[in-house]
Amino acid sequence: MGLVNHVFSEDSLKKLYVSNLGIGHTRYSTSGVSVLDNCQPFVVETLHGKIAVAHNGELTNAMRLRRKLMRHGVGLSTSSDSELITQLLAFTPPLEQDDTPDWVARIKNLMNETPTSYSLLMMHKDIIYAVRDPYGNRPLCIGRLVPVGDINGKGKNNAATEGWVVSSESCSFLSIGAEYYREVMPGEIVKISRYDVQTLDIVPRPQGDPAAFCIFEYVYFARPDSIFEGQMVYSVRRRCGQQLAIEAPVEADLVSTVPESATPAALGYAQKCGLPYVEVLCKNRYVGRTFIQPNMRLRQLGVAKKFGVLSDNFKGKRVVLIDDSIVRGNTISPIIKLLRESGAKEVHIRVASPPIKFPCYMGINIPTKEELIANRPEFKDLAGYIGADSVVYLSVEGLVSSVQESIKARQDHENNLKTNKFKSGKIGHCTACLVGVYPVELEW
Amino acid sequence: MGLVNHVFSEDSLKKLYVSNLGIGHTRYSTSGVSVLDNCQPFVVETLHGKIAVAHNGELTNAMRLRRKLMRHGVGLSTSSDSELITQLLAFTPPLEQDDTPDWVARIKNLMNETPTSYSLLMMHKDIIYAVRDPYGNRPLCIGRLVPVGDINGKGKNNAATEGWVVSSESCSFLSIGAEYYREVMPGEIVKISRYDVQTLDIVPRPQGDPAAFCIFEYVYFARPDSIFEGQMVYSVRRRCGQQLAIEAPVEADLVSTVPESATPAALGYAQKCGLPYVEVLCKNRYVGRTFIQPNMRLRQLGVAKKFGVLSDNFKGKRVVLIDDSIVRGNTISPIIKLLRESGAKEVHIRVASPPIKFPCYMGINIPTKEELIANRPEFKDLAGYIGADSVVYLSVEGLVSSVQESIKARQDHENNLKTNKFKSGKIGHCTACLVGVYPVELEW
Amino acid sequence: MGLVNHVFSEDSLKKLYVSNLGIGHTRYSTSGVSVLDNCQPFVVETLHGKIAVAHNGELTNAMRLRRKLMRHGVGLSTSSDSELITQLLAFTPPLEQDDTPDWVARIKNLMNETPTSYSLLMMHKDIIYAVRDPYGNRPLCIGRLVPVGDINGKGKNNAATEGWVVSSESCSFLSIGAEYYREVMPGEIVKISRYDVQTLDIVPRPQGDPAAFCIFEYVYFARPDSIFEGQMVYSVRRRCGQQLAIEAPVEADLVSTVPESATPAALGYAQKCGLPYVEVLCKNRYVGRTFIQPNMRLRQLGVAKKFGVLSDNFKGKRVVLIDDSIVRGNTISPIIKLLRESGAKEVHIRVASPPIKFPCYMGINIPTKEELIANRPEFKDLAGYIGADSVVYLSVEGLVSSVQESIKARQDHENNLKTNKFKSGKIGHCTACLVGVYPVELEW
Amino acid sequence: MGLVNHVFSEDSLKKLYVSNLGIGHTRYSTSGVSVLDNCQPFVVETLHGKIAVAHNGELTNAMRLRRKLMRHGVGLSTSSDSELITQLLAFTPPLEQDDTPDWVARIKNLMNETPTSYSLLMMHKDIIYAVRDPYGNRPLCIGRLVPVGDINGKGKNNAATEGWVVSSESCSFLSIGAEYYREVMPGEIVKISRYDVQTLDIVPRPQGDPAAFCIFEYVYFARPDSIFEGQMVYSVRRRCGQQLAIEAPVEADLVSTVPESATPAALGYAQKCGLPYVEVLCKNRYVGRTFIQPNMRLRQLGVAKKFGVLSDNFKGKRVVLIDDSIVRGNTISPIIKLLRESGAKEVHIRVASPPIKFPCYMGINIPTKEELIANRPEFKDLAGYIGADSVVYLSVEGLVSSVQESIKARQDHENNLKTNKFKSGKIGHCTACLVGVYPVELEW
Repeated sequence: MGLVNHVFSEDSLKKLYVSNLGIGHTRYSTSGVSVLDNCQPFVVETLHGKIAVAHNGELTNAMRLRRKLMRHGVGLSTSSDSELITQLLAFTPPLEQDDTPDWVARIKNLMNETPTSYSLLMMHKDIIYAVRDPYGNRPLCIGRLVPVGDINGKGKNNAATEGWVVSSESCSFLSIGAEYYREVMPGEIVKISRYDVQTLDIVPRPQGDPAAFCIFEYVYFARPDSIFEGQMVYSVRRRCGQQLAIEAPVEADLVSTVPESATPAALGYAQKCGLPYVEVLCKNRYVGRTFIQPNMRLRQLGVAKKFGVLSDNFKGKRVVLIDDSIVRGNTISPIIKLLRESGAKEVHIRVASPPIKFPCYMGINIPTKEELIANRPEFKDLAGYIGADSVVYLSVEGLVSSVQESIKARQDHENNLKTNKFKSGKIGHCTACLVGVYPVELEW
Repeated sequence: MGLVNHVFSEDSLKKLYVSNLGIGHTRYSTSGVSVLDNCQPFVVETLHGKIAVAHNGELTNAMRLRRKLMRHGVGLSTSSDSELITQLLAFTPPLEQDDTPDWVARIKNLMNETPTSYSLLMMHKDIIYAVRDPYGNRPLCIGRLVPVGDINGKGKNNAATEGWVVSSESCSFLSIGAEYYREVMPGEIVKISRYDVQTLDIVPRPQGDPAAFCIFEYVYFARPDSIFEGQMVYSVRRRCGQQLAIEAPVEADLVSTVPESATPAALGYAQKCGLPYVEVLCKNRYVGRTFIQPNMRLRQLGVAKKFGVLSDNFKGKRVVLIDDSIVRGNTISPIIKLLRESGAKEVHIRVASPPIKFPCYMGINIPTKEELIANRPEFKDLAGYIGADSVVYLSVEGLVSSVQESIKARQDHENNLKTNKFKSGKIGHCTACLVGVYPVELEW
Repeated sequence: MGLVNHVFSEDSLKKLYVSNLGIGHTRYSTSGVSVLDNCQPFVVETLHGKIAVAHNGELTNAMRLRRKLMRHGVGLSTSSDSELITQLLAFTPPLEQDDTPDWVARIKNLMNETPTSYSLLMMHKDIIYAVRDPYGNRPLCIGRLVPVGDINGKGKNNAATEGWVVSSESCSFLSIGAEYYREVMPGEIVKISRYDVQTLDIVPRPQGDPAAFCIFEYVYFARPDSIFEGQMVYSVRRRCGQQLAIEAPVEADLVSTVPESATPAALGYAQKCGLPYVEVLCKNRYVGRTFIQPNMRLRQLGVAKKFGVLSDNFKGKRVVLIDDSIVRGNTISPIIKLLRESGAKEVHIRVASPPIKFPCYMGINIPTKEELIANRPEFKDLAGYIGADSVVYLSVEGLVSSVQESIKARQDHENNLKTNKFKSGKIGHCTACLVGVYPVELEW
Repeated sequence: MGLVNHVFSEDSLKKLYVSNLGIGHTRYSTSGVSVLDNCQPFVVETLHGKIAVAHNGELTNAMRLRRKLMRHGVGLSTSSDSELITQLLAFTPPLEQDDTPDWVARIKNLMNETPTSYSLLMMHKDIIYAVRDPYGNRPLCIGRLVPVGDINGKGKNNAATEGWVVSSESCSFLSIGAEYYREVMPGEIVKISRYDVQTLDIVPRPQGDPAAFCIFEYVYFARPDSIFEGQMVYSVRRRCGQQLAIEAPVEADLVSTVPESATPAALGYAQKCGLPYVEVLCKNRYVGRTFIQPNMRLRQLGVAKKFGVLSDNFKGKRVVLIDDSIVRGNTISPIIKLLRESGAKEVHIRVASPPIKFPCYMGINIPTKEELIANRPEFKDLAGYIGADSVVYLSVEGLVSSVQESIKARQDHENNLKTNKFKSGKIGHCTACLVGVYPVELEW
């Protein structure tokens, strides 16, 4: 438990050098309570040896599954969905022989028990299985390790494959000398062995259901150089900025960003409008991201410490400030005050995503309904409340079209796969937190 | 994981002040590997809420039980017998109703599955169950908390009961302001609630089997002020010394001890012989007990650092040195050299217990057969090997009679219990490590 | 010793809440060896009570001063210049009365003993003295604490002064609710008391010597929102980019930056050229700044982990990449490779500062002469060596003019001070690491 | 700072393996405040290289020396007497040449400045100087390293010398494979080099003053196997017990000890009286020594946790309990209660040292005058206050004669030294804490 840098000392890493496969896991403490028991991967001994499971997501029918498992006589050590998954995989199905576990059958059995949301890795002996739920709610992709060569792997593209890596986000590949290979498709069960990466099956969604990849990965969570559904997140964010410029233009002197996550949208907005892009804030690099901090008070203090003001750049000017999202409204408000006190003549806020209004039950830690600014009375006069001259959010349609416009590589991939008799089905995105419609019925 | 002093900070203890019941566990890393996963108590969630289990001992049929449980579909997180016990207790027996767990039935079911060795506590809601296996191999006793009064609880004996505590050794009671109440009997299931301590059942041993309390608790492990079977450990050890004086007298000038565990036996020996009791060594109090140190090399270094020599006390004298046990023979040898180099004229070793020759499968960490001095060729001329003028061990019969001679309080207790229709059966002790006969058949 | 976050726990900070003045110190381990003994502030007891000293800089005649002090009979506990300064201040000058220490005389005595480089704070009882060496080599400035009000100090500018803060960089003021007040001038001795900030004296430089503020603070070290000599660092850096566009234009499709320190220069370059500004790299925010890492190997590994590539933004394009400095040449080289492998058609490097060629003896940790790329044979064909299509550095004259162009506020301040009979003298900057001419003669 | 076990990890010790001389220091936090700054050895750089000083004791004129040093212009970093000594040794005397420090002259100069109390080691280059103040108030002795041979250095006495060690207490020698060589005499300056141990000088006391070795080292502090003034501490303590039996006999059934420090006196008392020696308490080995714990409350709690009761050994009996000292009276009182509650018929306390009544200014941490039981009204009826049937202390004369009776080896050594023209003078002991007469006049 703790930061990766602290947990993995040089000594503990040395012990891993003798290995040639492994799985790991990092996560925010999204559910408020960080406890050692919920650390992953989960490792249990079964009749066929140890299995280890790492999981990203949240099961929409976890409570029912827990009761079922406990009724069978399994005592659960933690409150984690991931232990639940691990115990379900440890279960011997009735027809399985004692000496030959059928892991694919067990994984499919798990996928029948729970539709979403999970991207998971299971390791048993010298095999790793990578699985994405049929709705593809959480991301998962595969990278190819290539020889490092001199410093940065010159001639990487033609190099022999030295191994495979699986990750939620492709941005992690570069820093370990790997390159992006492809996504794991919604419902896909991939078997990774010493020899190859092999699709064992694609479990379909119920008739007609579109996929439901979390749209907020594009808006907020992912690093801009990550690739989802064949497109770079940075490009989607810039398109959101361009779309926002079409939906909500404003007469001003300059366009700027709340660094750094809103920068692609701000550059897109500036280019579409023909206004100059200028920096008004610089980051105080010793302070972390707002989302990580666990309570209201720390968030407020944090804001005052997050930025430096580049006042000479905007004194006496009308500023359009692009933000990637306004969730609670308490981050943007002090920024606007800072800019005004430092000489901004006008401050117009344009938000490159729609307002969040509904809870997420699929693994994203969204503030409570009461904390969401879009559900509060102040939302009626949001500009007044946050002290802006105007404020406009991107429309849901604008966001969805910015995201889906160029998912072509994905479609091509699908078409190729038809010949393999595997098919991931209709494209779609989960916008539940924006519109309140969930991809599957929720169970308690 | 770590020393109690380090693990329980003042802060972590403060969190416990609001509670009024709890269980805990400490142990040596007897099996060589200290891992966090094996820390106790084990806590699992069942259909009826959480249960917590703390356990002392080792199951003689653990491997068979593990396979049985895994075949049922339970993935085991650790290699610990205690998790095994916990999962067996989490199991819903076929006829039990969903909403009313029958813990006594479950505990008896566990006791049917495995005969020995375990003393255990199970906590569920506001009840703690204390259980000792039918052979009574590991100790377990109950204490009564009384008001502390001024510093040391004046008038304690007449005071109202403020609570109950259960412990392996009664010596722990004094330091928390409790007093010894009674032993948990072999096979007994005790229910401890807010209101009282109640015997629920006593599970009998197979016909005719005597109890099998570990005789080495008397010889080596227990603190001298602990009470087992109605007698103080110190008294047993002194009797061993007296018996040893009868079995193996020697012409000498003084009797001394390897401090501090052999002191009761040395005083008993000296008194029986009529020789003066004199100290020849003093402990270096910054060095721990030999048994805890994990490898041969540290043991050897440790010996050199353990003692100071009180040479003026024995220069030119013939010394009888009493030790509580000689297990490997590498501790006593450098002590004898020290004494000789510091002026002892003769050094005769008398050991207040018989030689250990066989492994223990019931929870005690005995060195491998090859490490035991009694199994090695040097044993034939042990005096020569360790550099003593003579060396004699106590006989097995002498030890058993020293232990059993005064178990009268115990018998009386038994007799009283007859009226309660509970009966713990024939007295007996496990001497397996001395004679190679185990109380139950071993399974793999 | 350690990161500020680790060293100052909430508990240790609570102890400071009762205080109303204090000094502290943070620094990189520039001289290679981090030792506790060199931690600041230095505190010693003198005949007049304790004094505490925090110091930034490096004395050019430290060795001679150390010998002098030791000859007088002072044993020095550390290798630190700051202890040297502290002991020099503890010294009773011959004419001083026993009961009334003349701190100003002592500080002036210190300034006579050593010309540069030091910015320092000395605390004695309820007074803090802020001192900058006559050459003004290291920065030092004063901020004014104002009431925080609601989150970000609304109406700050008119607010009453609540206290004073002194810092190397003004960027630190915002995050503690203070605002920039003014610089400490070269040679100035400022007394800060409960009541006011008062100039006690300005110690002049030798006849005709210009000031020698470190020009690399503008180029590399300072945060862009800091103010030196009346101007914002960001503006200087943007002017460097504009100047670079004039000195070294290139035919290309887009201008980009090595984030984030080169961004102001890149925006300046892009604007001057009329080329679009586009992001090609994104920072991996979990990896620190190159300069901090202590050895060559870590620097090389670090590069591979520092960035993500936004390949869709520049595939098939000709890129002008602006960097703030090229010191060793091993950081930019892998970046160029990354861009080429990700599809850049051409990569032209423009560096917004001149090459570093000489060591610094005034507190900046410059690599050894052999490590500096500008002193190595590869420098003759630098473009070839680093794999760029072209590479051009900013000229020294271009840098100096970009820095000095707008130091007007400073001049005005000087003029005002004339009436106070205090004068800081001729403007100037230390460019020793670029041209090899040092502001004072070096002593050993 | 911290326990030796924690401070010296295997890694930190490895760094020392390349060295062949060194000095170290451990101590209780006697003066209440443990601060890193007071950790020893003190190391300072002088004109002639580094010197390191480790010191045991407390200067009786420290305040005057501090003022003198600060007046000369030395800023002192700590409140430690040891830094004071170090800076005094760093001082260049007027007639000393720059390039040849005369350390002996400097040490003698230090000894002229301050009469007592200090035993100290000073290391410079490849020489260690061992110095004991003229009054010999704190102990210091020399040991000889011999080859370890097999486990415990067989044939040690004839072995070649492999090196020299210096220590406050000889008990430390055995555990590192060294043997006792001799004491450093009061006032002696010993030079230890690669080649030999050499007496450089013996600084005499003022005419007629006897030595003043701390008598409480015999009574309480030293380990029983340590040797002071040619005699084993254990033997002195046993003589104190015998003397006590003569001074204060009692009609009883058995004699016992407060383990473990009073055991030699108890055995001496029992032997002299002809009563049996029996153990009534056993130590709880997980709790430390009372003296170390820093405040009243912890001491009280500590008492309850320190012992186990061996009640079967004394039920219905009249007990004489020997303690080594009664300082505050709060330790013995709960012990007496414990014994009575556990069945003792009578409890008579005999204390093997006289009551402490006065503060120590020479390095021993004595409770405040108000805390000392001998200065409080309860002392008039001490038996009643502590709950004993009777209580008698050893007389001061009895203690002094028990200590001085056999200091013969010492006298012989003196006589030998006469031929060397060195002489340590009249034997004597500091009994200031018992009688209020200090060996030197105290200065402030």
